[in-house]
Amino acid sequence: MSQPLRLKKNADRRLKAGHLWIYSNEVDTRETPLKAFQAGELARVEASNGRALGVGYVNPGSLICARVMSRDPAMKVDRSLFVHRFKQALSLRERLYSGPFYRLVHAEGDLLPGLVVDRFSDVVVVQLNTAGMEVLGEAIVDALEKVIKPAAIVFRNDTGERRQEGLAERVEVVSGTLPEEVLIEENGVRFAVPVLDGDYTGWRFGHRDSRAWLNRHVAGKRVLDLFSGAGGFGVQAAASGASEVLCVDASGDALEQAAHNAELNGVHEQVAIGEGDALEALAALKADGERFDVVVLDPPALIRKRRDSNSGERAYGRFNREAMRLLGRDGLLLTASSSMHLAPERLMDVVRGAARHQDRHGQVIFQGHQAADHPVHPAIPETSTLKALGVRVFRD
Amino acid sequence: MSQPLRLKKNADRRLKAGHLWIYSNEVDTRETPLKAFQAGELARVEASNGRALGVGYVNPGSLICARVMSRDPAMKVDRSLFVHRFKQALSLRERLYSGPFYRLVHAEGDLLPGLVVDRFSDVVVVQLNTAGMEVLGEAIVDALEKVIKPAAIVFRNDTGERRQEGLAERVEVVSGTLPEEVLIEENGVRFAVPVLDGDYTGWRFGHRDSRAWLNRHVAGKRVLDLFSGAGGFGVQAAASGASEVLCVDASGDALEQAAHNAELNGVHEQVAIGEGDALEALAALKADGERFDVVVLDPPALIRKRRDSNSGERAYGRFNREAMRLLGRDGLLLTASSSMHLAPERLMDVVRGAARHQDRHGQVIFQGHQAADHPVHPAIPETSTLKALGVRVFRD
Repeated sequence: MSQPLRLKKNADRRLKAGHLWIYSNEVDTRETPLKAFQAGELARVEASNGRALGVGYVNPGSLICARVMSRDPAMKVDRSLFVHRFKQALSLRERLYSGPFYRLVHAEGDLLPGLVVDRFSDVVVVQLNTAGMEVLGEAIVDALEKVIKPAAIVFRNDTGERRQEGLAERVEVVSGTLPEEVLIEENGVRFAVPVLDGDYTGWRFGHRDSRAWLNRHVAGKRVLDLFSGAGGFGVQAAASGASEVLCVDASGDALEQAAHNAELNGVHEQVAIGEGDALEALAALKADGERFDVVVLDPPALIRKRRDSNSGERAYGRFNREAMRLLGRDGLLLTASSSMHLAPERLMDVVRGAARHQDRHGQVIFQGHQAADHPVHPAIPETSTLKALGVRVFRD
Repeated sequence: MSQPLRLKKNADRRLKAGHLWIYSNEVDTRETPLKAFQAGELARVEASNGRALGVGYVNPGSLICARVMSRDPAMKVDRSLFVHRFKQALSLRERLYSGPFYRLVHAEGDLLPGLVVDRFSDVVVVQLNTAGMEVLGEAIVDALEKVIKPAAIVFRNDTGERRQEGLAERVEVVSGTLPEEVLIEENGVRFAVPVLDGDYTGWRFGHRDSRAWLNRHVAGKRVLDLFSGAGGFGVQAAASGASEVLCVDASGDALEQAAHNAELNGVHEQVAIGEGDALEALAALKADGERFDVVVLDPPALIRKRRDSNSGERAYGRFNREAMRLLGRDGLLLTASSSMHLAPERLMDVVRGAARHQDRHGQVIFQGHQAADHPVHPAIPETSTLKALGVRVFRD
């Protein structure tokens, strides 16, 4: 049996409320020194009175020094547990979606702390974001092969979370062979997914619902897609009838992907690309007197740590102000944030400030969140990161 | 010109941020005594230094003693202003919806503080919720006749807000003639709307998107609709393929409407009704060993005033716990709240607590808000009231 990890008095409250994390200052290190654990080692988690709270894995070098894998202390953490949880996760996705394109495992949201699995039909991309999951990598691959039988499994182990856990970067095909091109369909639109070197796992399923919402409001419109990446929003807008779409991104590779994705859907004539820094692009478009009916603003997370909240909010403020300036008389702004530390009501305030700054009126007609294949654990606010607002911007 | 309403020093901050309300303790009553105003009288709103901030209407007897109608102090508040704002509001709805069934005016969210207008094709139902709007009633009717040309205009002036403003109840057809039956279509499903004596204006368009979401998850399912009213959720679920729906409500009239609406859509065989108190019904169903695949829990606002937050949250907690108990092994709970004082993260916590209480897991796969015809004013949190969570509830 695993060695125990004893909590201090009252330090079990968060777990009892349903959360799965233990911080290093909550451990009774006199009873159970953290340095007695290997990174990723399993432990029996105990309250201060010795009562078992579950089984989890430990990383003595991380601020979040343990995460609970099961509330049943007798649960064996092995391939069978992963098979069970994967089936549970799969059964939700199969009810939600008609095609095999989705986030199959959303870490804590699927009771698998530190593990992300995105599914692109028979190609599966895995992120092992903690030392605990790193140790369990083989069991995870075995379980995926049993439950999904994929043609290829890719480890995209190049995330920021891994650096915090003291883990090395490692991107590799760990099983099977990748096809020439990995293709998905989202909201009826086709995309090629660069699973080895694209942002994240190559695709962000999380915005699926916000894209679907936007698609209903772009027919005949001129659309600007800032931070377009491979054209998730922009190409879908073109395929949904936008008359003209300009995708702007700092990455030439991403824009090449966007152009390719436009071609895949036969909308390359409607989609233009512009490489460059977003603020510079906004200023240049303004100087040229350009106006758009719809602007999509989906920057990378501008607040990565809580202590960056103020500067990050100012950055969101600046982007949203400049984006609004490019809207015509009665325009639509879709503004998104993937910063967990920017609460939805703060994004609302960013919109408020940007509109006031130009003496325009904003009407928030859409409050979007991450798609259903990114389930939120109600005890773990950290599982909820994506948010988007659809704002009608007009002069009274 | 209207007489001035002078604010205290720094009391203009909220208005400058975009809000439209003035509280009675923010008025410099030595300079401009509130009792010098008639209820509903227009005023020129001034900062402490005399600078004009706009034009608004005053109610000396209300805690919110004034609401701004325009930031332009020279704006005439008359029929033309209403025509202009109604056209602005109409243009949004016509872009959003294919049929003429929607909230046309969402008060502050459409820059018309205190005014609600719901449109049921050529029947229009108006709520004048403040003394200011009461005084402007005739201009409003005239403007509606110009912009919408409705067959009938109904005043449903029987709201709680009116009581707070010291206004009498008054329900009447103020223009035209009501048809035998007022019919709408929402998400492809038909409903008869009791505009004279139903809850609210007879229909709650605000839940349109949450209903549309639920409709995608009920095929072949057994559904319980608590606080069903006239069957907004339940009848739509049946029309969307639910195998069986039980609508429970304390009002026999509402249930008759639900049965009638089920007939209108040819799903009366799938829809059963049960009259009674929700908690008693939950207990009785539990005692009978009943189980449902989907439970809808949309109680009337349980927190009407901020000071009732604690007791209200406990009530939400109890309803959610009892509702979850009736779910099968892997069920879906749609839990809603129309309490402005229950923040979305508190509803999330209610779900967390209910799941923990039964040692079940909750996965929040839908975070819903009021529909787009209820625009949120980003400076006025009070314009955002409806929220809903879709929760998969299972045992690991």
